[in-house]
Amino acid sequence: MLSVLVEFSMFPTSADGRDGASVSKSVSKIIDAIDKSGVPYQLTPMGTVIEAKSMKEALSVIELAYEQVSDLERVYSSLKFDIRKNTENRLKTKIASVEKVLNREINH
Amino acid sequence: MLSVLVEFSMFPTSADGRDGASVSKSVSKIIDAIDKSGVPYQLTPMGTVIEAKSMKEALSVIELAYEQVSDLERVYSSLKFDIRKNTENRLKTKIASVEKVLNREINH
Amino acid sequence: MLSVLVEFSMFPTSADGRDGASVSKSVSKIIDAIDKSGVPYQLTPMGTVIEAKSMKEALSVIELAYEQVSDLERVYSSLKFDIRKNTENRLKTKIASVEKVLNREINH
Amino acid sequence: MLSVLVEFSMFPTSADGRDGASVSKSVSKIIDAIDKSGVPYQLTPMGTVIEAKSMKEALSVIELAYEQVSDLERVYSSLKFDIRKNTENRLKTKIASVEKVLNREINH
Repeated sequence: MLSVLVEFSMFPTSADGRDGASVSKSVSKIIDAIDKSGVPYQLTPMGTVIEAKSMKEALSVIELAYEQVSDLERVYSSLKFDIRKNTENRLKTKIASVEKVLNREINH
Repeated sequence: MLSVLVEFSMFPTSADGRDGASVSKSVSKIIDAIDKSGVPYQLTPMGTVIEAKSMKEALSVIELAYEQVSDLERVYSSLKFDIRKNTENRLKTKIASVEKVLNREINH
Repeated sequence: MLSVLVEFSMFPTSADGRDGASVSKSVSKIIDAIDKSGVPYQLTPMGTVIEAKSMKEALSVIELAYEQVSDLERVYSSLKFDIRKNTENRLKTKIASVEKVLNREINH
Repeated sequence: MLSVLVEFSMFPTSADGRDGASVSKSVSKIIDAIDKSGVPYQLTPMGTVIEAKSMKEALSVIELAYEQVSDLERVYSSLKFDIRKNTENRLKTKIASVEKVLNREINH
């Protein structure tokens, strides 16, 4: 059993994918595809967190994300992976473990 | 008016800050300090998103976070800044703008 | 023509992949595999920069990197992608363009 | 004794700081300021690695970097910190330790 948590943001840095300083349209295409892919995810103000069961599955979601904006001249992405054996459902349990240590609710 | 959104994770990579593969105790000390600092924040499964009104304020929160674990031999942190003029309250509005484009609710 | 520049670091965060606070052995296994893979790369004090010709090729290098440490209990990775059409050889040209603007050599 | 290694990239994501898809001019202003600051650094194709002796010093370099582009509407930055006690000069020694393990020179 493997839990591959990935936090990532991906957005165009060329003019063809932007409305002035906004990237909402391009980013929304990526999130739409992730939402429809069925992978467990959570959107945050700075990116999207997904949880996959293998590195191959996690990387395929990143590839799916890029396919939504691959027509654009330049795209930037920053990602973080936390890959842990013998765990699952960490979209929920990682926050719960902090609240357990602090013995109170935390904004999430 | 400036909105400095920061997504970051900070954790020990030396044995003195870990219980086996877990870092919950050290990470909880950081989140406790952020929660008590009053800065607007949101905890996610892969980090913490804060919103400051200046770069100085944002960097002072990162310094506050490190102070909680500065006794440990080795600490790692990865951060992302999205700094935008003439905006505020983006902890809420960035997600709302995606839901507006997609015309439906998204997991967040 | 597509240039996919990736800067990444990958290291164990569980005790089974560390000598105290050091990760040199695990990290060296990853760099050894990248060096032998033939993909253009450059090692830096904080990670490895590779240049691939497609997103699929770039992600396969990340998968190759993880395979070197997939026996370990917990692994962390942070990555950045700069994906740009109609360019190549940016391992060299991105630094050269900065030196051209500044009209002098820069430490690299 | 503390070694704070920081790898970061910072660039405008609004039209006022870009020439089409290029950010060389804005990025060069940041690197010019870092080069003149005297902090030990190394430019890479995907960012700049600096080494500071305290967290305060490291964060002040990030503030200095942002000051060079703070006139622009929107700026993005991704950073990684590796903070380790009882070490110094890791701009050189981290790569050397990998070459020692592999017993051969590596592209850097």
